[in-house]
Amino acid sequence: MQPLQIQNSLTRKKEIFKALNSPHVGMYVCGPTVYSNVHLGNVRTFLSFDIIYRYLEFIGYQVRYVRNITDVGHLVGDADEGEDKIGKMARLQKLEPMEIVQKYTNDFHDVMRVFNILPPSIEPTATGHIIEQISAIEKILDNGYGYEVNGNVYFSVRKFSEDYSYGELSGRKIDELMSNSRALDGQSEKRDPIDFALWKKADETHLMRWPSPWGVGFPGWHLECSVMSTKYLGDRFDIHGGGMDLKFPHHECEIAQNVAANKTENPITYWIHGNMLTVNGRKMAKSEGNGFTPDELITGNHKLLERGYTPMTVRFFMMMGHYASTLDFSNDALIAAEKGLSKLTNAIEALERLEGTPETNPSVDVSALSQRCYDAMNDDFNTPILIATLFEGVKWINSAADGRFNLGTEQITDLKTLYSGFMKDVLGLESEGSESSNRGVEGSDDIASNLLDLLVELRSDAKENKDYAGADRIRNTLSDMGISIQDGKEGSSWSHE
Amino acid sequence: MQPLQIQNSLTRKKEIFKALNSPHVGMYVCGPTVYSNVHLGNVRTFLSFDIIYRYLEFIGYQVRYVRNITDVGHLVGDADEGEDKIGKMARLQKLEPMEIVQKYTNDFHDVMRVFNILPPSIEPTATGHIIEQISAIEKILDNGYGYEVNGNVYFSVRKFSEDYSYGELSGRKIDELMSNSRALDGQSEKRDPIDFALWKKADETHLMRWPSPWGVGFPGWHLECSVMSTKYLGDRFDIHGGGMDLKFPHHECEIAQNVAANKTENPITYWIHGNMLTVNGRKMAKSEGNGFTPDELITGNHKLLERGYTPMTVRFFMMMGHYASTLDFSNDALIAAEKGLSKLTNAIEALERLEGTPETNPSVDVSALSQRCYDAMNDDFNTPILIATLFEGVKWINSAADGRFNLGTEQITDLKTLYSGFMKDVLGLESEGSESSNRGVEGSDDIASNLLDLLVELRSDAKENKDYAGADRIRNTLSDMGISIQDGKEGSSWSHE
Repeated sequence: MQPLQIQNSLTRKKEIFKALNSPHVGMYVCGPTVYSNVHLGNVRTFLSFDIIYRYLEFIGYQVRYVRNITDVGHLVGDADEGEDKIGKMARLQKLEPMEIVQKYTNDFHDVMRVFNILPPSIEPTATGHIIEQISAIEKILDNGYGYEVNGNVYFSVRKFSEDYSYGELSGRKIDELMSNSRALDGQSEKRDPIDFALWKKADETHLMRWPSPWGVGFPGWHLECSVMSTKYLGDRFDIHGGGMDLKFPHHECEIAQNVAANKTENPITYWIHGNMLTVNGRKMAKSEGNGFTPDELITGNHKLLERGYTPMTVRFFMMMGHYASTLDFSNDALIAAEKGLSKLTNAIEALERLEGTPETNPSVDVSALSQRCYDAMNDDFNTPILIATLFEGVKWINSAADGRFNLGTEQITDLKTLYSGFMKDVLGLESEGSESSNRGVEGSDDIASNLLDLLVELRSDAKENKDYAGADRIRNTLSDMGISIQDGKEGSSWSHE
Repeated sequence: MQPLQIQNSLTRKKEIFKALNSPHVGMYVCGPTVYSNVHLGNVRTFLSFDIIYRYLEFIGYQVRYVRNITDVGHLVGDADEGEDKIGKMARLQKLEPMEIVQKYTNDFHDVMRVFNILPPSIEPTATGHIIEQISAIEKILDNGYGYEVNGNVYFSVRKFSEDYSYGELSGRKIDELMSNSRALDGQSEKRDPIDFALWKKADETHLMRWPSPWGVGFPGWHLECSVMSTKYLGDRFDIHGGGMDLKFPHHECEIAQNVAANKTENPITYWIHGNMLTVNGRKMAKSEGNGFTPDELITGNHKLLERGYTPMTVRFFMMMGHYASTLDFSNDALIAAEKGLSKLTNAIEALERLEGTPETNPSVDVSALSQRCYDAMNDDFNTPILIATLFEGVKWINSAADGRFNLGTEQITDLKTLYSGFMKDVLGLESEGSESSNRGVEGSDDIASNLLDLLVELRSDAKENKDYAGADRIRNTLSDMGISIQDGKEGSSWSHE
C-alpha cells in the first residue's frame, strides 16, 4: 500500500506522514468566529478536515482533534455612553456579547450536524482560556520577544526574526514586509508596523474585558490558537489546518508565538490549508450577492439557486473536489452531484439484496479496487479519485443486480465492507434523514419504507389481476414523489430516483 | 386574569411575580456536571425550567436564561506518577479532562434536543470563568468573609452569619449546623467544620489547574454559579432554579457568596426547586438499579421497561405532574401519557380539517377556556391543570369532527390559536420527528403522509369495487404500524393511533 502522503503547506512538498507519537495524532483546526452565521466556505473547510479526521481514524490513528470557537469579539456598547453610566443600569438591559456568542455557536453546531460533520475531541473557547493567554504573553515577554506600551502588549517581529525565521509558512521575506508596511494612525505605539497585538487595552465602551498584569483588556486574535493548540496537544504536534485565507497573518503569527513562548522550533509538523468556494466562477462573498447560507442552499431560497439540495448532496458535491483546489458552485454541478450520489446509494442498496454465487467471478478483483481506494486517500486525501474509484465497482453491482453478471458470496461480502467503510466511515455519507433521526426511536423513514413495500405489493397484485390502470396509478404517484419501482426477476422493488 | 404567582422556595410562600426590570427577566438554572451521561432526573429539572422559560416568554417577558455547564472536575492522573514525570511525556498521551467534558457536553445537548428543550440564552462554563471566580474570592476576602490557609481559601460561615443571615433558604439554624457538624480528618485547617472551600490547592496529580494569588489550584464547586449568574444577570436578579437536592448546601452557599462578595442583600428574588423522579414508588438511583438513561427510555432497552416511548411521550408524561411534586415512572403511567398525547394531537389535526359554520355555537366559550389555561399556568406553572383544561376542548372538537356539533368559523380560529399556543409554544410538544428534522428539507414525514393519502384512496376504491379483502388488507397492515383509518362523512382519513 502507498503510505499516507500530505501536501505540507509549510514545506510546499508532498511528504510521507509520520506522527510524532504514533498511533496518537494531534490535529488543530481554526474554528468559526461566532458573531454571525456560518459561511458556506467555512462549511467546506470544516468538511475537508472532517474527512481528514475520519480517514486518520479509519486507518488506525487515535486522533485528538481540537477545533476552537473564537468568541472574544470586539462588540462595544453605545459609543455615546461611557462605562460609568452604563454600569448604573441593570446588567440585564445591556447588550451581552455572550448571548450573541451562544446564538451563533448553536447555529454553527446545527449546521455541522446537518452536514454530518463530526464534533471534535475538544472544542475550546477563547474566553475559556484567558488565563492561559496571559501566561503565554508573560512567557513571550520573559523571552524578550514582546513589549508593553500603555496597557497594550505587542509581539516584536524584528526581535523574533533575529533569532528565528519569520514568514516561512506564507513565503514572505521579513525585509520586504518591513519595507512594504507603513505606520498607520493609532498604531504609532508599535515599534514596527508589522508587530501585532498580544493584549489590547479595553476602552470604556468595550464589553468583553478581563484584568491582566497590563490592566483591563482582552487578548489579541492570533494568540488563542497558539495557546489552545499547545495546551491540549503539546508544544509540538502533528497537524494544523484552516482555510487558506488564514495562512497570513494568522498562522504565521501563531508559529512565531509558539516558538517565542516555548522556544520550540518547528512546533507543527504538517500545515494543511483548504481552498475556497466560488459561485459560477466568481469568489463567493456577501458583497457580491452570491454568498448564500447553508440554509438557503438546502431550501433553495436564493436567487442564484434553481431549487434546494439535500445536505448529503451538498456534502457529496464538496467532496467531488480536492480540498486544496477551488470548488465552483453551480446548479448544474449540484444536479450532477445529486445524480452521482443517487447512483452510488442505489448500488449500495442493490448490493444488500444481491445473492452471491458459490464461485467467484474471475474478472472482478475487489481487493485491487479496495487498494486503489486507499491509494486515492493516501495521496493527500484525494476524495475525487476515491469517488471515481467507487463508481467503478458500481458497474459490477448493477450488472449483477440485472442478472447479467455473477458475483461470488465472498466478493459480495468484500464489496459490502469496502462501500460501508469508504462511503459511511470515510466520506460520512449517511442515508438522507438518518443523520438527524431520533436516536433509537423508530423513525419516519421506517414507516415510509413499510408503506412503500405495501404499495409495491398492491401494484404487483393489480398487475396480476390485469388492473393495469390501478398499477400505473401507483407507479405514477410514486414517480411524482421521486420514487421509482423496478421490476426484476425476483419481484418488484422501489428506490429513490 | 390571575396574575402570575410563583411558589418561592426562599419565603415558602406563593407570591405574585414582579420582575426587577420588567419586561426583562433574569433566570439562572444550575446545569449539568459533564463527567457522565445526563440522568433522567436532570432531564426532568431542565424540562421544568424549559416550561417556565417558554411561559414567561409566551406572556411577553424578555428572558435572559442562563444555564451553566459544570466542567471543573476532580480528575487526577495516575497516582503513582508525579506531575514532573508526566510532564515529560507528550501531552497527547495524557488523560485530558476537556476531552471528557466535550463528550458529555455533546451528549447533554443531544438529549436536550431530543426532548425539544430550548437552549438557554447563555450557557457559560466554569472553566471559562476562572478569572471571574478569582476576582470574587478577592472581594470576599477583602470584605472579611474568607481566609486563606496553605493555598486553600475558605468561606467563614461564622463571620458571615454575624453580619447576615445564613440558612434562610434551607431553613437551617446556624447554631444547629455548628453543633451538628464535626471536624473531619483533613479538614482541620478549616476554622469551623461548616466552612466551605472557595479555592483549592491542586496537588501534583490534579489535572485541572490554574494559577491564582494563592498558588496553583482550582475553584470550589459552589463559586461558579454565584459568579456566572451575577456576571450575566447582575448583582440582583429575578429567578434562580435547580433540582431540590441542590438547595443545601449548594444554593445556600451561593446566596452567602453573592452577599459576601457584592454586599447585596436579597440577591435573588424567587427560588424555584424542581422535585425528583421515582420509579414504581422508589427513588431513582443507579445504586437501586432503576436509574435508566434517556436513551434506554426511548429504546425500551432496560429490564424495567416493557417497551420504548417516544421523546414527546416522555415530555408529555413529565408535564402531567407539577414540577414541585415527585413524579413516579411506571409503564402504565407512560402508556397513559402516550394515549393522552395521541388524543390531543389527533384532536388538533381534526381541528385543522374542520370547517366552521357561520353561526357560533352558544354552548362553547373558547375565551373562558383560554382564560382557564392562562390561570392554570399563572398558578405556579401548573401544567397538569393546563393539560386537563386542554382536554375539555377536545370534546368539542371531536363532536364537531363527528358531525354531532357545530363550531363557528371564529370559534375554530380561536381554538387553533389556543391549541397552537399552549401545545407548541408553552408545552413544547412538536409532531413526533419534526423536532429533529433537517431544517428546510422536505422530510420523510411528508413522504409518509403522501403515501398514506394514496393508500387511503386505494382502500376507498377497493371498497367501491367491492374488493373488501383488498380494503381490509390495507387497513390491517396500517393498523399493525399503529395507523388507523377513519371513515367519515367527507371521506376517509388516517391518523396515528
